Parts: sequence; structure tokens; C-alpha cells
Amino acid sequence: MSFQAADPDFETRVRDSFARQAFMGAIGAELARVEPGAATIRLPWRGDLTQQHGFFHGGVVGTLADNAGGYAAFTLLPADHSILTVEFKVNLLSPARGEALESESRVVRAGKTLLICLSEVFALRHGGRHLCATGLVTLMGLAGRADGPAH
Amino acid sequence: MSFQAADPDFETRVRDSFARQAFMGAIGAELARVEPGAATIRLPWRGDLTQQHGFFHGGVVGTLADNAGGYAAFTLLPADHSILTVEFKVNLLSPARGEALESESRVVRAGKTLLICLSEVFALRHGGRHLCATGLVTLMGLAGRADGPAH
Amino acid sequence: MSFQAADPDFETRVRDSFARQAFMGAIGAELARVEPGAATIRLPWRGDLTQQHGFFHGGVVGTLADNAGGYAAFTLLPADHSILTVEFKVNLLSPARGEALESESRVVRAGKTLLICLSEVFALRHGGRHLCATGLVTLMGLAGRADGPAH
Amino acid sequence: MSFQAADPDFETRVRDSFARQAFMGAIGAELARVEPGAATIRLPWRGDLTQQHGFFHGGVVGTLADNAGGYAAFTLLPADHSILTVEFKVNLLSPARGEALESESRVVRAGKTLLICLSEVFALRHGGRHLCATGLVTLMGLAGRADGPAH
Repeated sequence: MSFQAADPDFETRVRDSFARQAFMGAIGAELARVEPGAATIRLPWRGDLTQQHGFFHGGVVGTLADNAGGYAAFTLLPADHSILTVEFKVNLLSPARGEALESESRVVRAGKTLLICLSEVFALRHGGRHLCATGLVTLMGLAGRADGPAH
Repeated sequence: MSFQAADPDFETRVRDSFARQAFMGAIGAELARVEPGAATIRLPWRGDLTQQHGFFHGGVVGTLADNAGGYAAFTLLPADHSILTVEFKVNLLSPARGEALESESRVVRAGKTLLICLSEVFALRHGGRHLCATGLVTLMGLAGRADGPAH
Repeated sequence: MSFQAADPDFETRVRDSFARQAFMGAIGAELARVEPGAATIRLPWRGDLTQQHGFFHGGVVGTLADNAGGYAAFTLLPADHSILTVEFKVNLLSPARGEALESESRVVRAGKTLLICLSEVFALRHGGRHLCATGLVTLMGLAGRADGPAH
Repeated sequence: MSFQAADPDFETRVRDSFARQAFMGAIGAELARVEPGAATIRLPWRGDLTQQHGFFHGGVVGTLADNAGGYAAFTLLPADHSILTVEFKVNLLSPARGEALESESRVVRAGKTLLICLSEVFALRHGGRHLCATGLVTLMGLAGRADGPAH
């Protein structure tokens, strides 16, 4: 499915919002790619992101699945809208073991109020790219609310 | 529903495992309570755990819902088992705004292979405790695998 | 959590809507109980509702989890609103084996646009009531749309 | 992803199992296509399958998403295994309005114990094929249990 962004400056708007998410900076995530209806987040491995076996923590994997969905959906919103996650579901398919994770998400349905995204998280390992999680994310656009800090 | 732990040392085993999850330490989470079939994780607010409005990031909320479920389930496993999350789904019900989060999870079904937990995440705010997320977590017990680092 | 219904005639409205769902009549389901923020659907066993082992089909169980959520949420809507399911997730905890199923759902969050329900499906068997499924349902209220047939 | 079926007679085994699901026959569903790791169920519209607007009931849509996943996974199991749904989640993307539904599912991960499928349900309408739901299904293979009626 191909989408048209309502806001021509969608990429700047998305990247500014991502930069305001302190948690993304804290874990070292970067927004690798933004297109109308799609986004990819990349996260290099670090020891402080792991579970007891030294792999990426499942919560980190879920975070990336959710957040790539959020920004994939945010690309399609008008400039004066903010976005929030209604719910997400993620299947952890195999150990999130590798040098980095890449979470790719794309909008599968853009309604007037709700947007639904399909996310896939890959583990980059020894030059390969292995699907380690897949998820569905439901998001809601909120008109007339800036995407900045609440006052 | 009330459960009996197969392993009398379940609490030590659960706390040791939690302590080995570097990501829990990195975000400042602590295992507040452990009982047979139930676990509570507590996480004080920090600026580096937030999204663009200064509230706890949805990925952090999901992480706590998942992980409290994992440890609730882990309490019921025999001593030589490890555990992994198969999938989780979380509804973000209201902004995760407050001084701390508490994620409570309890086992609703303990099968031979799979365990299912219901998690509720509360935001502690101005002396109140507000439900901000609820989720379901599916976990699998793995016999004969230590819960330590993989070799 | 206790709720107040916005529409004093909520029960009539809910029962009328249920009666218009041909699929509920076809499978023999009845709306056993309706309260503000809660609903219970009951379904006696029939041979044509089964999977290959003679138990209730998982799709039937999911249908009841979804639909009890829908009507639990519908109790709280104003009289001129209709409702639709955004998504639902159900864990099938044990075989849906018994003389009847009862699906109980209650609203856990009633927002301006979205309502979230927690559903539990029980199998009635030999005088006992066994939890066989649990699920979360996300619903959306639609203002100014009659709940009748589309024209 | 392409899969190899462990059982060369997988198609007969899958079709026999589908034929034993009384509920599939009762609603008029047919197994349109079976391949290693994939299955499609087709369901013509009937008045008794509808909700209050005359469209396919959401429970029917969920049933097809779940069951196509079940049979997609079942194609990959050895001949002496049966299968059961652990959980499923479905997003209802648009009204299930049309002359028929087609639910396509494919395995995205085939583990030793668990299989995960991605399902898409399409509404056939005026010669078009419209995505109306998408879902994820988690299934478990059970060794040494016949897929017939329980005794």
C-alpha cells in the first residue's frame, strides 16, 4: 500500500518528535528511515539493554516495535496533530541476539481517527538480518495538540 | 486463584534472575514484591525514561507489563527451568504520568508448557494510584536450561 | 471500578442491538446480564459450534469474548452512539469443554473515544465454572450513528 | 519465507481436519487453498453471519483469522501431531462488507513447539478485494495426539 503524507514537512516533524523522546536517546536508538506510512528505528547493542542471557531485553524489542509503528503513523498526520499508542501486541519469535536491532513498521490502515501498523524487528547478526519479532500497533491521532512537552 | 511454588527457593531464584537483567538496573526498576504466581515491579520516574510530553515512554510501560508477567510466571517453575516471553499485548489506558510506575502481574493460567499472566500498570501520582495500562503476557517455561548468561 | 450509564434506557438499547445481531441468534447466544460497564453472554453447547474434538470452536470463544466486550462498552454510550470493535486479543487457556459458555466482560477504561474491556470466558461443566479464555477488547464509540442496519 | 512440509500428505490431513470442524461447515466456510505454511479460508455471505448493520460479524472475521492461522501452521506439523490455538489478536480495519470473506494466513515462525502466523482477511466486494482485518495467531503443536474427537 502506498501513502501520501498530508504534511509536506512530515520528515522534519517526525525527526523533531523522535529527538524529543528522551528514552530513545537514552537507549541509543536512531530513526534510520522515514517515508510516508513507514519508519525504521535502529538500535546498536549495548550491555545495559540486555536480559539475563546477554541478548536485547524483550521490553526493548517491544519498545522498538511500538515506536516504529508510532512514527510510521505520525508521518501521515496533519501538522497540528499529535499521536498516541492505543495498544500494541508483539510476538517475540526468536532471541534478539546481534550487533543491532532494526524495527521496520508500515501503516496497514489509516482511518480518520485510528491508524494500524505492522512492525517487524530484525536482529543484525554476522552480516545477516533475522526476524526476531513481529507486532501490531493501534494508534490514535489527536487534532490540535502540539507534539511538545505538556504544560 | 492461589498457587503453590514448586521450588521453595523461588523468591531467591526470581530475585537473582531479575538482578541479572542489566536493562532493569539501567532504568532503575526494582522487584517490589514476589509471591507464588505474582510479581510487582516498581520504577521511579526519571527524565531519561520519557516520551515527548515528559511522561513515562509507552515502551517502558510495556516493558514493565511484560517483565512483571515474566517473573510472576517464573515463581511457579521448577528450579532448573528458565522462562521466555512468547508474546505480550498491552493497552495504554491513560498517560503514564507520575512519580513512579508499579506493574503488578499475576498468573491466570499455569499449564505444563505455557503460562499466561494478566498485568496492570499503575501510575503513582499525588498520593493516588491510577491504572494506566493493562496487558496479557504469554510465557513458556524451558526445562533444563539455566537462567544465567548463554555460553 | 463502578460506572454510571449516560443513557437511563441503556439496557433496552443494548438488548435491542443484541437482538439485531443475526449471528448471535444463529449460534443460540443470549445476553444473560447487562449492567453499566458490564455484560455477560451465555451460549449453550450445540454440535454445530464445535471443532474437531467436540469442544466449542476457538472462534466461538473469541466471538463471545469480543461481543461481551462490545456490549459492556455499549452500556456506557449515549443513546445516539453506535459502537465498533477496533481490535481484540484472546488467550485460549484451556479446552472450551462443557454444557455452556459464559463470557463476562467489564469496562476497564472508558475514554471519550475509546473503551477498553477485559473479558473472561467460562466453561460450565459438571456444575463447575472453569475459566477457559481471557481477552482484551478495544472499542470505539461513534456519535450520531444509529445502531440499526446501514442504508 | 518458504517452508517444506514434514508430512507429504499434509493437504489430505489438513482437509480432513477442517472437515471435522462442525462449526466451519455450519457457517459455510471452505478451505480454498492449502500450501506448506499457508492456508486460505473462504466464506460466502449469509444473513445469519451478520451483526446489526448486515455486515459479517466481527466474531466471524476473528474466527477466520484464527482458523486460517491454525491450518497454515498445521500444514507443517508431523502426521501424529495435533494443533491448538494459544492466543490470537485481530485488528478489524474496515467493515467486513461484501459477498464473501477470504482469510489468508501464513506462518512467520515455525519453532519446535510454537508456530506464529500472520492472517489477513479480505472482503470481496463489487469485484474488488479489500483488506478488512489483520491478525497474529500463536499456535502450539502437540505430539502424539490424534486430531480426531476426544474419547
